Amino acid sequence: MRAHDDHGPDRLSPRNGAAVIEETIPDIVIRRLPVYVRTLRELQSRGATSISSDELADQIGVTAAQIRRDLSYFGRFGKQGKGYDAERLAEEIAHILRLDRQWDVALAGFGNLGQAIVHYQGFVPASFRIAAIFDRNEDAIGREVDGVVVKSPDEMTDEIARLGIKMGIIAVPAHAAQEITDAMIAGGVDAILNYAPVVLRTPARVTVREVDPVSAMQSMTYYLDN
Amino acid sequence: MRAHDDHGPDRLSPRNGAAVIEETIPDIVIRRLPVYVRTLRELQSRGATSISSDELADQIGVTAAQIRRDLSYFGRFGKQGKGYDAERLAEEIAHILRLDRQWDVALAGFGNLGQAIVHYQGFVPASFRIAAIFDRNEDAIGREVDGVVVKSPDEMTDEIARLGIKMGIIAVPAHAAQEITDAMIAGGVDAILNYAPVVLRTPARVTVREVDPVSAMQSMTYYLDN
Repeated sequence: MRAHDDHGPDRLSPRNGAAVIEETIPDIVIRRLPVYVRTLRELQSRGATSISSDELADQIGVTAAQIRRDLSYFGRFGKQGKGYDAERLAEEIAHILRLDRQWDVALAGFGNLGQAIVHYQGFVPASFRIAAIFDRNEDAIGREVDGVVVKSPDEMTDEIARLGIKMGIIAVPAHAAQEITDAMIAGGVDAILNYAPVVLRTPARVTVREVDPVSAMQSMTYYLDN
Repeated sequence: MRAHDDHGPDRLSPRNGAAVIEETIPDIVIRRLPVYVRTLRELQSRGATSISSDELADQIGVTAAQIRRDLSYFGRFGKQGKGYDAERLAEEIAHILRLDRQWDVALAGFGNLGQAIVHYQGFVPASFRIAAIFDRNEDAIGREVDGVVVKSPDEMTDEIARLGIKMGIIAVPAHAAQEITDAMIAGGVDAILNYAPVVLRTPARVTVREVDPVSAMQSMTYYLDN
């Protein structure tokens, strides 16, 4: 069974489950877990209690085999064919992902993209709050958005350190992205969501996820007219 | 060597290379190719001609082994240790991805996100042009952006068919995303970039890439304070 080869044991002892999980869940699985939480909660909101891997796979649009392989880390919550306890599974995965608290996030860049990010209603329910905003534009500096005042990037390192912010969003032009990233990390940021079309150089301790719509589009043209 | 197990032959006969490539390149590799093209062109713009997999790996921030494994599909452009011809490799990959032409794209949603997308300067150099814009908001309908007039979603299917558009961007709220997607596909769209936090149901012939910043952020909190 591939779950064993790829991901280690597919059951956890209740006692030291968390520790085992942190050691054994590969990043590719971690990346999928948020979609499982979101989908499980959607199904709950529609009254579902027990969810089979087939139902979940159908909702998410992946194979039931992958769902079972990924959720095998949470094997004690359900057995293949028996179905998972939707609420407990969603809560457990959210806990594993540390989503049972709110995370303050620093946003760098208050242009069209930055403003779209600030006004997006999905962050708070997802456990995030834009707690600091930075932009070089003099017209933007001093503006207040939901109680957050836009500041100059020159203040970024100190402000991030003062607020204890661990996550940042890079929504500045490509040419400014590395400098802004360095300033964020100097302030204590360990996780960065990068919208700039550049590969950021960061210390090993820092996690970076790219939001790269252009590359996504360029990888779809391959399939057009095929 | 994993390249053989995962990706089939790592050399192509010059004669039917393209056909072989289309048969043998896995999607995960296709997704990485645009980054290679972008990076190779950046290196060229700085005067580089021959690039080693180590240099490319350093620029992109992945392992040289992965670069060699992926680029082994283009083995005739370079040998391990010898370096790749940057210009020819970039052109060949761009050709494989069908980026040696311009693609018209339909945008659904002209809120903050849609406006950020429309004003993004990176699409044209990346071979894309926003050729149609749709929004339900009466204030948006009729507005002209770079020669494109914002139209009602009610006109979307006909307009997309009339313009022969094959790619669409979903930048509407989650609750409207599926309906908008269906209308795009009815007009002839075969590739969709989806910003809405929902899994779209589409025919098998349609390629969908998700832009899911919230899930990306939720998969990084796992590593914070570790």
